[in-house]
This record gives sequence, C-alpha cells and structure tokens, in this order.
Amino acid sequence: MSTTVLDVPSGTPARVATPRPGDRRLGRLSLNQRSIASWSVAQTVAGCVAAGVPSVGLWREPVAAAGLAVSARMVADAGLRVSSLCRGGFLTAAEPERQRDALSDNRRAIDEAVTLGTDTLVMVVGGLPAGSRDLVGARRRAEDAIAELVPYARARGVRLALEPMHPLYAADRGVFSTLAQSLDVAERFAVDEVGVVVDTFHLWWDPVLPAMIRRAGPRIASFQLADWITPLPPDALLSRGVPGDGHIDFAAITGMVVDAGYRGDVEVEIFNGDLWAAAGSDALETIIRRYVELVAPHLLA
Amino acid sequence: MSTTVLDVPSGTPARVATPRPGDRRLGRLSLNQRSIASWSVAQTVAGCVAAGVPSVGLWREPVAAAGLAVSARMVADAGLRVSSLCRGGFLTAAEPERQRDALSDNRRAIDEAVTLGTDTLVMVVGGLPAGSRDLVGARRRAEDAIAELVPYARARGVRLALEPMHPLYAADRGVFSTLAQSLDVAERFAVDEVGVVVDTFHLWWDPVLPAMIRRAGPRIASFQLADWITPLPPDALLSRGVPGDGHIDFAAITGMVVDAGYRGDVEVEIFNGDLWAAAGSDALETIIRRYVELVAPHLLA
Repeated sequence: MSTTVLDVPSGTPARVATPRPGDRRLGRLSLNQRSIASWSVAQTVAGCVAAGVPSVGLWREPVAAAGLAVSARMVADAGLRVSSLCRGGFLTAAEPERQRDALSDNRRAIDEAVTLGTDTLVMVVGGLPAGSRDLVGARRRAEDAIAELVPYARARGVRLALEPMHPLYAADRGVFSTLAQSLDVAERFAVDEVGVVVDTFHLWWDPVLPAMIRRAGPRIASFQLADWITPLPPDALLSRGVPGDGHIDFAAITGMVVDAGYRGDVEVEIFNGDLWAAAGSDALETIIRRYVELVAPHLLA
Repeated sequence: MSTTVLDVPSGTPARVATPRPGDRRLGRLSLNQRSIASWSVAQTVAGCVAAGVPSVGLWREPVAAAGLAVSARMVADAGLRVSSLCRGGFLTAAEPERQRDALSDNRRAIDEAVTLGTDTLVMVVGGLPAGSRDLVGARRRAEDAIAELVPYARARGVRLALEPMHPLYAADRGVFSTLAQSLDVAERFAVDEVGVVVDTFHLWWDPVLPAMIRRAGPRIASFQLADWITPLPPDALLSRGVPGDGHIDFAAITGMVVDAGYRGDVEVEIFNGDLWAAAGSDALETIIRRYVELVAPHLLA
C-alpha cells in the first residue's frame, strides 16, 4: 500500500463523488491546516468555506504570520469552528531557565487558543534534550510542567490535550508514547482540565488500543486522522498517509472512539510531501472524499 | 546524535582500548552475523575467533548458503556458542495453505537450530498480509501458529523466542509490538517453551519497559543490542545504530535485564548501511569497543 495521494485509495474503498457544501456527512470534519501546508490562514478559511468543511485545526505559526486577531476574526466571520490549536508542549528541557521559557510560551499558546475560540490546545510534549539519554527524566519533567500549566489553562477554559506520539518520535519529538501513558498523566487532573488526543497514525499499532480508548472516554479531546503507509517515506516527519492509502482500519478505530462517547470534530492532519506539493484545493478534495468514504459512515453508527 | 559509525561515540563514553581475545569482559558477547552482512558463516566464525568473541547469532540464509552441516561443524570446531538462530516466524498469512507452508518452514528452522547447537529460535511473527488492514486477525493467527509450533519445538529442546518489534514495523514485519503483548502470548506456555527477545532498538521507548522486563524474568531468551539514531535513516530497515551513537541508555536497560535474572549471551544485532559498508574487521572492532564501554560493565553488577 504505497502512497497514492490524490487518487482513489489503493485498497478496498470505492470511489465516491465529492460531497457539496452543506452535505451532512461533512458536519464533523475539521481540516487541520498543516494538511495543506502551503495555505495561509486566509486560504485555509476560504478553502474550507468553499468546500463545506465546517471546522479547522489551526497552528500557531501560520496564525502568527497572519496575525492572531486577524486570524480569529477571519475564522469567526466565516462561521468556522476551531477544533484545536496546535500546539503547546516541548516541556522536557533540563535547564530551569529553558523550562521557564517553555512554560511562558505555553501560557501564550493558551491565550491564543482563547482568542481563536477553541477550548483545545494540543500538547506535543517534546523529545529528549540534545545529548541526553534520560527518557525517564524527560517524561517526569513533561508531567511536572503539565501540572504547572493546568491552573492557568483551567482559569481560561482551555483543556490541555496530551498527544501520545508514535514511538518513532520518542527521541526527538514526543516522549509520551502510548495512550495509556498519557492517560496516566491526564487522570491526575479533572476531565475538563486535561484530555488526550487520539491520532490514528500515532496509535493504530497499539495492542491495547481498544481498552485504552474505552478508558479515555470523556478525556478524548481530539480525534485526528492520518494513515500509516509503507515503505515509510525517507523523511520520518512527512511519513503520514491520506486515509485509504495505508494500513489503518479507520472503521475500527472510529468505532472505538464513537463507542467511547466522542462527539466532537474529526481532524484530518496529514504531513506528507506529495500532498503538500499538490494544489491545495485538489488536496482538500481528496481529503474530503476519503473522509466521507472511510470515516463519516462510522460516526453515525 | 547522528551516526558516527566506526568512530568514538558522539556522546559521553570515553574511548577504550580494544580488548584482546580472552579478555573476560568479552565473555558474554555474541556477534549477530547480520551486523556484518557481508561476512559468510566462515568469515563470521574466523572473525569472532580472531577477536575473541565467544558466541554468534546465526541467520538461516547465510547458513543455508554455506550449508547447514558445514556451518554447524565450523562453529563447533571453533568452539563458539550459538546464542540464537534468526529467524522463524512470518506466521500471519490469511490463506490456510500459505499458513501451512509457513508452519513447515518454521519446523525446518527448529530443526536447523538443533543442528547448529542452539536452543533459541528468534521469532519475527510477520506483518499484515498484503492488502489487509486486519491487525487483530494477524495477531491472532500469529498466536495460533505459535501454539501449533510449540510441541514440535519442545520435543527438540528448542525455545521459541518471540521478538516484539518496534511499532515502526507493525505493518510490514512484526505485529507483536510490545513486550507486554509478547508476554501475554508467551505466558500461555511453559517458560522453557516460549520466551521473549529484549532488543533495545525495538523496546527502549516503552514507558512500562522496566515493569515488563521484571515480568519477563526467566522468559528472557535473548538480549539484543542496537541504538536508536536520529534523524531516522531513509531506509527504515537499516535504521539501527551502533550502541553509543544514539539515544538509548544501555546502562539502564542492561541493568533491568540483569536484575530480571538474565545470564545469557548478549547479541549485538545492527542493521546499518554505514556499518555494512565498512570492512568487517573494522566493524567488529567498533562493536566490541562499544560493548565493552557501554554494556559489559553493567553485566557484572
């Protein structure tokens, strides 16, 4: 199952017509803006409106480039929901002054979430500090930093959504590697203070995933979609596939998330060089078709 | 921490002199022959004898190329131990006839282990069949096949050593992804029937690794070493680093394995393009130096 981006899936699903704006199957779809990396906030908003996608997942960098207040107004004027802001985190520094800077930056991210009108800040907690092999220490520092941020976030109505990352990224991106581990941290806090992200790309391989999604229940703060493709593309950071191009059973995982009670938006978040090279509107059309084919039917069950 | 193969580690350890044959620090070192892929069985045997490495991990393909009986005699005549045979497995086929073929091939692998004088057959259970997204089914078939092989292996004094593979390989190589999952399967059988492989590359990221290594205890049938390097090399199958070149804390994991009671050979198994491109004797010298520096001291604790 190689990448067949911008084409019909190589696997079993049949082609579907692209739904029109207003199609109720799109009612919970959110476009994470990093799926179409070339688009500014303005282009993302316009593209979603044109295609009938009612929700967006925003990233801090393009929001900053467009201006925070301007971005917030564009999204609100367009009537779009903001399913999440990506991302806080990077809380594993060993030096106290660097950790203080990271905490300040995370407080700014919480403020930005408020301005943008989302209650969900995705947290990618960070990898090992350069030169360090102390994975236990990095995990402990991340956990301590989450605890320090919770009062600030709670006071502003923002939930910290811990994102377990594929173990592929344990060294350089996220030392929270499983849903179980993220829940162990999240459960120290109230349900509306700290949640978790269920991202199919990061978690599909986990033998205890069904039990952990059940356990997560109301802690599921975000449900994100990307496929696992083989061979793994050379750049591990751009290795996510469009749903249908890889090995993940989206019906099964969507069913677990629905059964756990999740009723929120479903974000398509794909980092993929081929998708990024395509015209944005073509990429979005492919994303919508795959979502309608592979995921939306299982949200209605 | 990039690959600095054939040089001193980029991290903390200080250079050590290469130990001479007979050095007691080499007493438990095993060279997995895939670490020096260009070497035949004869070259591997000669190289280990010259360097004072008392044990080898053999692979079926080079053994077949040299001849099974010839290989067994070479190893025995040289006075080397065979710490394991790699590998059985690939037991996830959905079609009954393909599964029957796989079982037959695994019985041959068990026979080869006996001939070569090892009681440990490493099992890489296989990935998803082509076109399948049924991870649960693939895992169940692998487990059923292990159960079917156990009586044959037990009667010949061979232990099946289940190898949990990094989740990176769940789709295309091994659907047993964690030590916990492998132990769930192994514990259906007697300790001397089914064990597990603790490979640092595959397992280092696991948040529950210390508890699972304790749980494994006498089920640890093999302890294998390779480092996790970043950025991940473009070919995910050749992404293992020489200990010291990456992010893994070998002292910590070796300590866990020792505390769990493991007293067997320690196999260095590295799939790495740079290492494979080097002269075999240079590669082996680097492997030995790193082992003596980073692992051997913690075996004596």
